Amino acid sequence: MLPDEVKEQIIEIVGEQDFQDSYTNKLVYSYDATPQFQAMPDAIVAPHNTEQIAQIVKVCNRFKIPIVPRGSGTNLSAGTTPLEGGVVLLFKHMDKILEIDEENLTITTQPGVITQEIINQVEERGLFYPPDPGSLNISQIGGNINENSGGLRGLKYGVTRDYVLGLEAVLPNGEILHTGGKLAKDVAGYDLTRLLVGSEGTLGIITEATLKLLPLPPAKKTALTLFEDIHMAAKAVSDIIAHKIIPATLEFLDQPTIKVVEEFSKVGLPTHAKAVLLIEQDGDSHKVEQDIKSISTICKQNEAFEVHVAQTKEEAEALTTARRAALSALSRLKPTTILEDATVPRSEIANMVKAINNIAEKYELDICTFGHAGDGNLHPTFLTDVRNKEEIERVEKAFEEIFITAVELGGTITGEHGVGAMKSPYLHLKLGEAGINTMKQLKLALDPNQIMNPGKMFAKSNRKKVVIKHEYA
Amino acid sequence: MLPDEVKEQIIEIVGEQDFQDSYTNKLVYSYDATPQFQAMPDAIVAPHNTEQIAQIVKVCNRFKIPIVPRGSGTNLSAGTTPLEGGVVLLFKHMDKILEIDEENLTITTQPGVITQEIINQVEERGLFYPPDPGSLNISQIGGNINENSGGLRGLKYGVTRDYVLGLEAVLPNGEILHTGGKLAKDVAGYDLTRLLVGSEGTLGIITEATLKLLPLPPAKKTALTLFEDIHMAAKAVSDIIAHKIIPATLEFLDQPTIKVVEEFSKVGLPTHAKAVLLIEQDGDSHKVEQDIKSISTICKQNEAFEVHVAQTKEEAEALTTARRAALSALSRLKPTTILEDATVPRSEIANMVKAINNIAEKYELDICTFGHAGDGNLHPTFLTDVRNKEEIERVEKAFEEIFITAVELGGTITGEHGVGAMKSPYLHLKLGEAGINTMKQLKLALDPNQIMNPGKMFAKSNRKKVVIKHEYA
Repeated sequence: MLPDEVKEQIIEIVGEQDFQDSYTNKLVYSYDATPQFQAMPDAIVAPHNTEQIAQIVKVCNRFKIPIVPRGSGTNLSAGTTPLEGGVVLLFKHMDKILEIDEENLTITTQPGVITQEIINQVEERGLFYPPDPGSLNISQIGGNINENSGGLRGLKYGVTRDYVLGLEAVLPNGEILHTGGKLAKDVAGYDLTRLLVGSEGTLGIITEATLKLLPLPPAKKTALTLFEDIHMAAKAVSDIIAHKIIPATLEFLDQPTIKVVEEFSKVGLPTHAKAVLLIEQDGDSHKVEQDIKSISTICKQNEAFEVHVAQTKEEAEALTTARRAALSALSRLKPTTILEDATVPRSEIANMVKAINNIAEKYELDICTFGHAGDGNLHPTFLTDVRNKEEIERVEKAFEEIFITAVELGGTITGEHGVGAMKSPYLHLKLGEAGINTMKQLKLALDPNQIMNPGKMFAKSNRKKVVIKHEYA
Repeated sequence: MLPDEVKEQIIEIVGEQDFQDSYTNKLVYSYDATPQFQAMPDAIVAPHNTEQIAQIVKVCNRFKIPIVPRGSGTNLSAGTTPLEGGVVLLFKHMDKILEIDEENLTITTQPGVITQEIINQVEERGLFYPPDPGSLNISQIGGNINENSGGLRGLKYGVTRDYVLGLEAVLPNGEILHTGGKLAKDVAGYDLTRLLVGSEGTLGIITEATLKLLPLPPAKKTALTLFEDIHMAAKAVSDIIAHKIIPATLEFLDQPTIKVVEEFSKVGLPTHAKAVLLIEQDGDSHKVEQDIKSISTICKQNEAFEVHVAQTKEEAEALTTARRAALSALSRLKPTTILEDATVPRSEIANMVKAINNIAEKYELDICTFGHAGDGNLHPTFLTDVRNKEEIERVEKAFEEIFITAVELGGTITGEHGVGAMKSPYLHLKLGEAGINTMKQLKLALDPNQIMNPGKMFAKSNRKKVVIKHEYA
């Protein structure tokens, strides 16, 4: 529970109506989209502006109260679970697009705007915001920035980080920081913008962002290619890139995933294929035609037994929407769906898929694998049940092996989901001692009281899971 | 002078032949390409590998000896002047390209490789490394990474930062850090890669880098457009972008610059034009044709009195080479050429050019302005003489006004040259107190003894200039 003094001061700042600490409210914010992690916050606060946030942070810093900034909570790494209690900070009142600047190709936005809304608004003006995380229909842009979200278009267009030009943020000491601007080039000092992007709310609270936009590509084509052999599909991916073609998306689905997605979405996906590549190219129409033709040829050379190019925009969208629904579709099968995003260099995809299947077999687990093949960013997904403790233990062992294998293949433990609480025990695999130490030094320099989203990124021995504080119950 | 113990230990590590401390050798490394800054180092060391660098850093950290990592010293911000003495660390023995990976589109390189060599090697394989700083013929890639170098292609392709996927670096405590990898997506922990990029050697020593490559665009066209009115040229820049065309380069030269460059390069530049835009587009040949046609129309609508499209590759290259020679050409006119790179949002270029000319007039200075108009990254260049103290004072006042104006227009004090010692007194204009404090906290966390390139980035009251230590003379 918050000390009375803290509660009074926060209410003084935001008003009664934007401070909540009833059991029901706290329960709602005790978890995010990540299975297996739950802990009660002490209060939920919804400030109206940066100045209010700065004041709240100063109070919390003085009393060493944890703050968990939270967008829509769609992250899959327990990044917004309030593991050490404290204040969950919401952006529902900071949900305005402040400016779309067509001359400088930028959008300036508050953190609470839904990602899809940004995409819609800029596309209406013939502009393009490429990062498209799976949850873009409900995720908030502030959350995307905190997590450095990826998406289907990462291969050609990069990730959220590549589009953040400037930030306003409240630091753990309550000071307001401004970084970057509407600038294509800026080397004035350390890259604080990108230090904040992907820092998962552990270094400060992002209160405004200026994002880079591109001209909207005039044309787009989508192709679905079917393979009998999963390894030939992986080889086709490598061959496409080796032919100097960078598709906008290059998605992989294995047979178990295809079956589930088709059952869910009924768009006519070929459930008899062992693997599918969903390929989209955008750009100038002449170039798009050319690329899709070359891609078809390359896939056929790699034993694709069917290459189907979507004939209408609607058909193309149905395919992409079906792919985006993969996680939702999978989550219908079993009570718990645990999805990971170990990532390898593109050339290692075939090896990684093989390793994942071997590991699943070894631990006798149901697995579906899909993901962004062009990025080497795979989502092996275990269908399980948290109540089955024995099976969950096998799942955890399997994931650990998957992470170790990814790093051994030159990859990483997380491509786009973040470390959060879920992957913090494995971060040392990727960063080594020097990397972890460096991160800790940076964290303690900016947040000596460790109030900003504690329990994330940095592994603790006392890892909390499914902890409901009984004082509230 | 280095303590005997330190000298002995460093010689033990690198060998006699790679340790130098004669007066002549130290004099050579007492300055870089930046006018007005000079200070003697205590020694010059040329290690052969990362392990040797780690050992040297440990010795220096123990004895609190400054280390200045130095590529070719082409930076223009006194970033590699050994202002507090110590050891200048060279990469002449670490000059190998380690791998070009055509499947993952990456190059892995030691820091001492010349930028142009990287470009040549990858272009031979149909690949493309876009960052092209003005000094690429002699600059080292390690220096480019330390400075986050820009170049002519920044508008369309971004800067060095956008191509660094992974780093090996020796931290100030001598530990070896590995970040990133051949990965399109990686969110495992803070973005240490980009914290190091552009940190100007103040946070560590980069010993290896993995860089992202693109497919080489198959076609390229270059156009020269001539304007009677400098503001119409600036308006044409905005209009091109507003028409959703992003040229590969979009360079601006004012009349004084054109005259000097033509005299130097004799490529037939139109010295009667008040302003010139040099525009290059690359990509698919069909799209390039289309874009160059649209750009020509837009320029004519903005009162360009001539639009000339280069007819051959040789002609196009002569134009680009002439533009690249601008600084060399200008430096022939007066003993001292001081070039800045204040940067504004693209929409403010006309206002910035106007302000620069007013400031030059106010302080009665000769100024030539050229630069990357598409980025809002201008290079106002004063032609002066360091021996004329009175004039140099006016130059400094003029620059201060230029920096203040740039920041007022939403810009920054440096777009691509870095802060170094030269712009550290102005950094607060851009970052404010919160920004400077944050940087200091990060710096002290990683380098508590402040051995890494001291006197850079952070302003000191006791700024040293043209200091030759007489003990050696």
